[in-house]
Amino acid sequence: MKQIAIDMDEVIARPNDRFIEWYARDTGIKIREEVLFQEGKKFYQYFGEEKGGAIRGYLHHKGFFKDLPLMADCQKVIRWLDQHYEIFFVTAAMEFRNSMEDKYDWLQAYFPFISWRQYVFCGRKDMIATDYLIDDHVSNLTSFRGKGILFHAPHNLEDTTFMRVKNWKEVRSFFEKELK
Amino acid sequence: MKQIAIDMDEVIARPNDRFIEWYARDTGIKIREEVLFQEGKKFYQYFGEEKGGAIRGYLHHKGFFKDLPLMADCQKVIRWLDQHYEIFFVTAAMEFRNSMEDKYDWLQAYFPFISWRQYVFCGRKDMIATDYLIDDHVSNLTSFRGKGILFHAPHNLEDTTFMRVKNWKEVRSFFEKELK
Repeated sequence: MKQIAIDMDEVIARPNDRFIEWYARDTGIKIREEVLFQEGKKFYQYFGEEKGGAIRGYLHHKGFFKDLPLMADCQKVIRWLDQHYEIFFVTAAMEFRNSMEDKYDWLQAYFPFISWRQYVFCGRKDMIATDYLIDDHVSNLTSFRGKGILFHAPHNLEDTTFMRVKNWKEVRSFFEKELK
Repeated sequence: MKQIAIDMDEVIARPNDRFIEWYARDTGIKIREEVLFQEGKKFYQYFGEEKGGAIRGYLHHKGFFKDLPLMADCQKVIRWLDQHYEIFFVTAAMEFRNSMEDKYDWLQAYFPFISWRQYVFCGRKDMIATDYLIDDHVSNLTSFRGKGILFHAPHNLEDTTFMRVKNWKEVRSFFEKELK
């Protein structure tokens, strides 16, 4: 059975929603997600280096990754993929020590049909030898040895080197063709 | 640069010491490590299925993996290996949700010269594509695609299929030869 590694943030979970929520909580200013897509940036890059660095610091807080909203259709499509492939959730959690338990609990809650045996929390992904990797970061796909699939996100709009999927319906269409 | 994956438990850290400590705390009975080697078992396997299962439950407790003693010479040898290879610490932490922060803090404390980029917390190791894996579990080495090196431990005494290293001095000797 072929193996698919699936990234978490901005692929199955929506940390940008949490950035928007916490930034509104702290400043009273609500940024819309459309603005991020217009600017082609990560949330914190939108604010310049100093202020952006402070906002990026949210990632280190306990609770930032807790109960994040799901990306549309990903549960349904991953349930289908799980019948045809071995799924691994592969997330670069290691920069953020305090994210690990929140991410673990999130996977257990939203993907109870995928075993903890199929979780990988790492710092880099170049030594992950699955057949496919679905990820929003071009750098992860560039160093990956298998077939890389770029999940559409504000910070990767300019890339044209990888096959882009705009949503989970497109992921399903791609793998339906692969299975033929 | 070639890559070496190094397991944690019973390879660089000594959870059997914690089993011995907590079992003595709870029962007043001190088991000696030599007995484990005589029996050729994991600590909890020594007690039969029911009682052993309860003792294995220690692994789920916060603090079990905190401040574990180091395996002799491993810091020194890994500092040397780090000059010649890319090191990854690859540990099957995912069965034990509450172990992750303790393991992370332990690596930061005892191996500050290895970046968090080189940590991998996983459930299985068959999709890890490093050149070498040093591990005490035959099952991890069997499914590994590179060169497996078995680190001597009470529960693997019978295996003759993998190259066995008895301690970290032998690990250094092996890699000195590999580098020639």
